[in-house]
Amino acid sequence: MAMKIGILGYGNLGRGVEKAVAANSDQELVAVYTRRDPAGVQIKTPGVKVLSADALEGGKEDLDVLILCGGSATDLPEMTPKYAALYNVVDSFDTHARIPEHFAAVDAAAKKSGHIGLISCGWDPGMFSVNRLYAASILPEGEAYTFWGRGVSQGHSDAIRRIEGVQDARQYTVPVPEALERVRSGERPELTTREKHTRECYVVAKEGADLKKIEEEIKTMPNYFADYDTTVTFITQEELDRDHKGLPHGGSVIYTGSTGENRHVVEYRLTLDSNPEFTGSVLAAAARAVSRLNKEGVNGAKTMFDIAPAYLSPMSGEEIRAHML
Amino acid sequence: MAMKIGILGYGNLGRGVEKAVAANSDQELVAVYTRRDPAGVQIKTPGVKVLSADALEGGKEDLDVLILCGGSATDLPEMTPKYAALYNVVDSFDTHARIPEHFAAVDAAAKKSGHIGLISCGWDPGMFSVNRLYAASILPEGEAYTFWGRGVSQGHSDAIRRIEGVQDARQYTVPVPEALERVRSGERPELTTREKHTRECYVVAKEGADLKKIEEEIKTMPNYFADYDTTVTFITQEELDRDHKGLPHGGSVIYTGSTGENRHVVEYRLTLDSNPEFTGSVLAAAARAVSRLNKEGVNGAKTMFDIAPAYLSPMSGEEIRAHML
Repeated sequence: MAMKIGILGYGNLGRGVEKAVAANSDQELVAVYTRRDPAGVQIKTPGVKVLSADALEGGKEDLDVLILCGGSATDLPEMTPKYAALYNVVDSFDTHARIPEHFAAVDAAAKKSGHIGLISCGWDPGMFSVNRLYAASILPEGEAYTFWGRGVSQGHSDAIRRIEGVQDARQYTVPVPEALERVRSGERPELTTREKHTRECYVVAKEGADLKKIEEEIKTMPNYFADYDTTVTFITQEELDRDHKGLPHGGSVIYTGSTGENRHVVEYRLTLDSNPEFTGSVLAAAARAVSRLNKEGVNGAKTMFDIAPAYLSPMSGEEIRAHML
Repeated sequence: MAMKIGILGYGNLGRGVEKAVAANSDQELVAVYTRRDPAGVQIKTPGVKVLSADALEGGKEDLDVLILCGGSATDLPEMTPKYAALYNVVDSFDTHARIPEHFAAVDAAAKKSGHIGLISCGWDPGMFSVNRLYAASILPEGEAYTFWGRGVSQGHSDAIRRIEGVQDARQYTVPVPEALERVRSGERPELTTREKHTRECYVVAKEGADLKKIEEEIKTMPNYFADYDTTVTFITQEELDRDHKGLPHGGSVIYTGSTGENRHVVEYRLTLDSNPEFTGSVLAAAARAVSRLNKEGVNGAKTMFDIAPAYLSPMSGEEIRAHML
């Protein structure tokens, strides 16, 4: 019998999860839950309901796993503990500094209710984290480098859009090729923020806006751009819609370690046409593991570190040993 | 208290495990066990005994995990079930077709004794397998490609050495750059054996040997060379000892998958100065997981698919969430 999946939130990530669940023959989408008016939300899966998030109250929905597709800033810190008290849940919480408190809150709620709350799932945090851990566990003497891109950073694009005179914007995070090559060579360089990534901004200005001022404001914005070599290119809305519509992303975790005089380089690299669709696919696979583990009696907060890879696969132990080992 | 590790077999892999255990502050090497005369075996760790394999009989040695460093052809099929009846064990069994029967034999012995027998650990099978599984679980619509090299294949080097007139040899497996690039581009090509890898052989001939005949015999050897573009270069023993002393290896698992019209490429790549030292490092990390899981009451045959990544790390859950997630 198919695993019953619910999705809370229908933005880019929610749509990515929907597509992933449709591709998983062992999973069935029960409903998409939304805090908006359900009548205004059109989903892609035929015959599946859109319901108000209120329907989730009291744990009355028949779900094996509820996948939470809210934002890390304000949604998930509240949502994940709340729903872990009622359902098995998976989220993609990515505010690094707040992971310990988020984990603790979800753990308390999930242990009390006997559910699993898998947090910080996706590719970073998520698959990148797992690869950092594998490499560091195998080669204790070594160092991990993470590069992101070339890809669209939605947070940085949003930051530009908030500047006065900006109509629309797309920001690409780009790893510096020389830095990548130095790290891949195994030399373990010390790299500053500026030496690792550059930022490319494509900006649509409002009519009559001061372009010089916009460019200056972007390039000097603390945290987001000031520490990077940033280029700003003004384009028309038509150009942005035509050439920058997608949400590609990716990057590399490169771990360079040694055993005495011998060097070893381990690289995990993603090149993704669609960041939310890949992330959604990781969440859907994680939901499979969560449902199984909970049926075995496991509960509490978990991360991808706690999931044996076999639990993510729809195949049996015999099948994966025969085909994947 | 440090985890007590034993090593059975002191060839290249046994020496790699020894070096890895020395680098792991939570592990302690108790002894190296050998089927040779212990008096003739010099190990690197100061103060550690070399004992006859006979000392392992009856399960009398005080070990948390015994790491089996024998060969897959004849040693491990017998060794792993035998010692899983007495100790927690880890092996690197890599004869693909025989994994199901090996797993079954180890599982029966380990379940009966209450131990864990982790089989087929290393990088392929091992970390490559885990990466094939993660990618296929995340993106069910897709295909995995595995490339090996550039690196020394000891099996192929041995096969050349068995030819009449050959004194010594080193064989490198080399991925075809064009094939790698086609796969990385996400196009999902169908590739023949010949299109994926070439084989470079460096051969020292005995005095007076028929070089033409040796080259012909190598290039037409079934399974090993006949299906590949193979180059044979005759060199002197001095050149071989000087330029081909190391055992570098590596390769890539490239999984190219899609979500509808969007393509995603996931690559896990290893570039290893020393194949046995990296493999030994994976076995040592796996031994850590095996010891912990057995203390939690887990037993039976396992593979890396069954090990949650957190068990491989010496760090606590709090630490890995704070530093690796």
